[in-house]
Amino acid sequence: MAGGSFADFVDHVSLIDHHVHGALNADGDEARFQNSLNEGNNEPLTNPGDTYTTQIGLAIRRWCSGVLDLPRHASPAEYWSRRSELGELEVSRRMTRAAGVSDWLIDTGLNAPGYLGPAGMADVSGGRTHEIVRLEVVAEKLITEIANPADYAEEFAQRLQNLALGAVGFKTVLAYRAGFDRDLSRPNPAAVTEAARRWKGNLGTGTNAKLTDVTLIAHGIHAAVSLKLPLQFHVGFGDRDLDLHKTNPLCLLDFLRSPDVRETPIMLLHCYPFEREAGYLAHAFENVYIDVGLAVNFTGARSRELLARSFELAPFTKILYSSDAYGPAELHYLGARLWRNAITKVIGEWIDDDAWSEADARRIVELVAHGNARRVYALP
Amino acid sequence: MAGGSFADFVDHVSLIDHHVHGALNADGDEARFQNSLNEGNNEPLTNPGDTYTTQIGLAIRRWCSGVLDLPRHASPAEYWSRRSELGELEVSRRMTRAAGVSDWLIDTGLNAPGYLGPAGMADVSGGRTHEIVRLEVVAEKLITEIANPADYAEEFAQRLQNLALGAVGFKTVLAYRAGFDRDLSRPNPAAVTEAARRWKGNLGTGTNAKLTDVTLIAHGIHAAVSLKLPLQFHVGFGDRDLDLHKTNPLCLLDFLRSPDVRETPIMLLHCYPFEREAGYLAHAFENVYIDVGLAVNFTGARSRELLARSFELAPFTKILYSSDAYGPAELHYLGARLWRNAITKVIGEWIDDDAWSEADARRIVELVAHGNARRVYALP
Amino acid sequence: MAGGSFADFVDHVSLIDHHVHGALNADGDEARFQNSLNEGNNEPLTNPGDTYTTQIGLAIRRWCSGVLDLPRHASPAEYWSRRSELGELEVSRRMTRAAGVSDWLIDTGLNAPGYLGPAGMADVSGGRTHEIVRLEVVAEKLITEIANPADYAEEFAQRLQNLALGAVGFKTVLAYRAGFDRDLSRPNPAAVTEAARRWKGNLGTGTNAKLTDVTLIAHGIHAAVSLKLPLQFHVGFGDRDLDLHKTNPLCLLDFLRSPDVRETPIMLLHCYPFEREAGYLAHAFENVYIDVGLAVNFTGARSRELLARSFELAPFTKILYSSDAYGPAELHYLGARLWRNAITKVIGEWIDDDAWSEADARRIVELVAHGNARRVYALP
Repeated sequence: MAGGSFADFVDHVSLIDHHVHGALNADGDEARFQNSLNEGNNEPLTNPGDTYTTQIGLAIRRWCSGVLDLPRHASPAEYWSRRSELGELEVSRRMTRAAGVSDWLIDTGLNAPGYLGPAGMADVSGGRTHEIVRLEVVAEKLITEIANPADYAEEFAQRLQNLALGAVGFKTVLAYRAGFDRDLSRPNPAAVTEAARRWKGNLGTGTNAKLTDVTLIAHGIHAAVSLKLPLQFHVGFGDRDLDLHKTNPLCLLDFLRSPDVRETPIMLLHCYPFEREAGYLAHAFENVYIDVGLAVNFTGARSRELLARSFELAPFTKILYSSDAYGPAELHYLGARLWRNAITKVIGEWIDDDAWSEADARRIVELVAHGNARRVYALP
Repeated sequence: MAGGSFADFVDHVSLIDHHVHGALNADGDEARFQNSLNEGNNEPLTNPGDTYTTQIGLAIRRWCSGVLDLPRHASPAEYWSRRSELGELEVSRRMTRAAGVSDWLIDTGLNAPGYLGPAGMADVSGGRTHEIVRLEVVAEKLITEIANPADYAEEFAQRLQNLALGAVGFKTVLAYRAGFDRDLSRPNPAAVTEAARRWKGNLGTGTNAKLTDVTLIAHGIHAAVSLKLPLQFHVGFGDRDLDLHKTNPLCLLDFLRSPDVRETPIMLLHCYPFEREAGYLAHAFENVYIDVGLAVNFTGARSRELLARSFELAPFTKILYSSDAYGPAELHYLGARLWRNAITKVIGEWIDDDAWSEADARRIVELVAHGNARRVYALP
Repeated sequence: MAGGSFADFVDHVSLIDHHVHGALNADGDEARFQNSLNEGNNEPLTNPGDTYTTQIGLAIRRWCSGVLDLPRHASPAEYWSRRSELGELEVSRRMTRAAGVSDWLIDTGLNAPGYLGPAGMADVSGGRTHEIVRLEVVAEKLITEIANPADYAEEFAQRLQNLALGAVGFKTVLAYRAGFDRDLSRPNPAAVTEAARRWKGNLGTGTNAKLTDVTLIAHGIHAAVSLKLPLQFHVGFGDRDLDLHKTNPLCLLDFLRSPDVRETPIMLLHCYPFEREAGYLAHAFENVYIDVGLAVNFTGARSRELLARSFELAPFTKILYSSDAYGPAELHYLGARLWRNAITKVIGEWIDDDAWSEADARRIVELVAHGNARRVYALP
């Protein structure tokens, strides 16, 4: 094969990270770093130091140490010391550049002070950035701004249309707010108005408007569907606010079967531990795509089996790469590093066994690394 | 060990394919072939060529090319060209003969023009064929033929008894028609008559009678159970008409616990992605058997992990081989080829690690390949 | 590394078996032995000899033969002959001593004639024993002894407090008695009294009191929670009395989120086939711990993949060892032997790939083997 070994090829293939958040841009203490290595617990850990004794903790010390000029498997103390010395922004710069990512598709729904926005991410990483609009954030802003709930439906559609001009896709966190085991058919206008009236009525002074009403979430989803941009669904693994068993993507079957959805790419994100179920949907529906982001980082040495499970029923034209990184830029780098490791190991073994030809393997790796994302999101 | 290496032994062990359908017997266009490489999508694919970029697509080009005198990993164009040159019937002949299958247990519920029936399959493959009667087809014929719904229950039982004389087992597609999360207890005669009356009343002129009423499906199941022939259940992976999460075989627990079921072998087919759940049932109930057909073909290079998962709790006296092939005879061959590959790899590793003795391994392979099927279906 | 190879280190690391039952102390026939190799079927097997043709059957012949001075892979006949010659107590002595277990945490809820109690287990094995009190047994004794159901709640709490003085933890078999998909919030005193009255009213003369009322089970669980000792939940794989799909530990989410539970260690036992779901809970809740006991024995050569799945999201400070052995002491030994094999293979491969450093690996193995159990149960 031209271009060296397959491992070498995978090490250098350019990635599009189709679901990611901003890296940190300001220094913080070690507890912030340690807590960010736990995704499920949504409050400060009692023993944050224990996060070093996990798959992700070991993976960071193994794979990220070199990016900070440390030897492999640096101790937590050495690692934190060197990290502090460099400063958060320099860590973000090194890690995002080492990731080999050409394009970051940033879900801006988590933007917060201390985190890089799309412009900052482009600057720090040297890559291109694109925006993914989170539907629930649009709704939460709207409800506090409109005077008359009867205007909600039309105004939401209008705003979405405007936002679509500057974005490459949408995202819903239905998984967190209501679960998938709900009626997700398109609500009629009267139901939307009634739900908006109820929500607005419940907004106390100073209360943060958090959308949990399934009628309005479904309304947002169908409004997005009609714009035909890719629509991302958080699926599976996340923090304990969600009922993990109610985020089984098979609960989306009725939604996916509705004829008006079939023209819109539906992107199932993360999917752990429902990779097989998600892969089945990618097989059964031409507009369904999957990734195994987030869990790749958190399963560390076990991420190769995770990635392998995603290579079962899903056509290879329907699998994408993402890190779902948020916060410490180790996560932006590690996602890419572990993905490369896993691809090399899993597909490399199929090549060694002559189950796949190396030519097919390279073509498929390019699809998953960037080709599918470029096509589905219509990136330049 | 006498007879060469373990791999050699597995390559030559004779198979009974205990759940399969007819191969094609008439030429068709490439789109028909491509569409048959997708099981989940029940309508023509927009981009049928993408089915080559899947595990099953790569597996066919790897493993079936040789049967058509092509080099390994032939390109899709080369493969289709050679296939067309030989003609469908010759492909069916070569593939079924290369499978090393002595007996095909054919579910005749899918018989359609263009597909070989049991006699044609015997002729083409050089093997023996046996019939599996699909319960819902019997019901659908009956409902259009009886004058009085009050005769339904008795007439159904009578027909089944007659059909049993020429068959080795029954099959139900409850999974497709109603799901497993339903009341599957034996319905009383009045309820059966009432359901038959409702169904017959709803039959329009020219309407195809499709049985979806759970009372009548349960009636069919219990009628079959009483005849004590093996009863196959479609479980898990299939096309998107079924709610995959409602075909978890654990939902059959109440049914399996009923005392009148225990004398009838219950064959759980396919099972993906519920192999562990199915294996548990095979462990917990003496009359439950499993296979991982269909998914073996569709997971290609990943089929070894699938097969390995079926070798956990299920006693080795309760695991069978099937391809669930239907249509292009590549599926009839590939099921066998991938099963042999997986057994060689998975069990071969246990032998190499000295976790299993090779003598035990050979004995168990013979059980799964044909011994269990011969015993349970009482084949000659 | 000091102390020889990693495999050697794992072979000699001392174990705490944090969930186990008594070994046999009296001779029995072969059918008793064979039946004990089936966990799911709760009645005598028609073909008990088939249990030799399973993963656990092969594993015993491979790994336990040596302990009885037999060659590896002894035939069933040889094995049973030698076993009979030695006698049950000598088998128990050899097997428990070969396990390398320093402490056995014995669930005394299964005590029966013919099985060793804690004192007998200590004597036979040469290890220390500690008691785990089964909540439902406490309730079943209480209901037959109290005169007035209105005293139930207070008296239960009092007894539990007394029992806690001599125990290191509690266990609930909610999984068997009602399933996890129930309201597990703390019942109020009136509801407890009412449920106790109903239960007592239903107790016939001579009837065995079996607690299945979810109010009283939940009452027991919350009474135990308030004592802050570790509380074990049977999760997943068990006999067919339980609805396996209703023991998905994710159904415990609401229970785990309640603030009064967070100070009490919740130990999820066995977990097959819900290891990923259990690992997620151990990741998301600081007080949740997991093991993969029972299934390690029953999956035999496949136990390495089971163990590997438990090393994903769960922090390594939250994973414990158990055998869940009960009856033939092969189960007490085999759990340890297969755990050592699996750890050596799974973690050894990570060391070989340089994904983990060997120093980290050894530290983590010590945590899982005994460190976590010693800390959580506050063992001497």
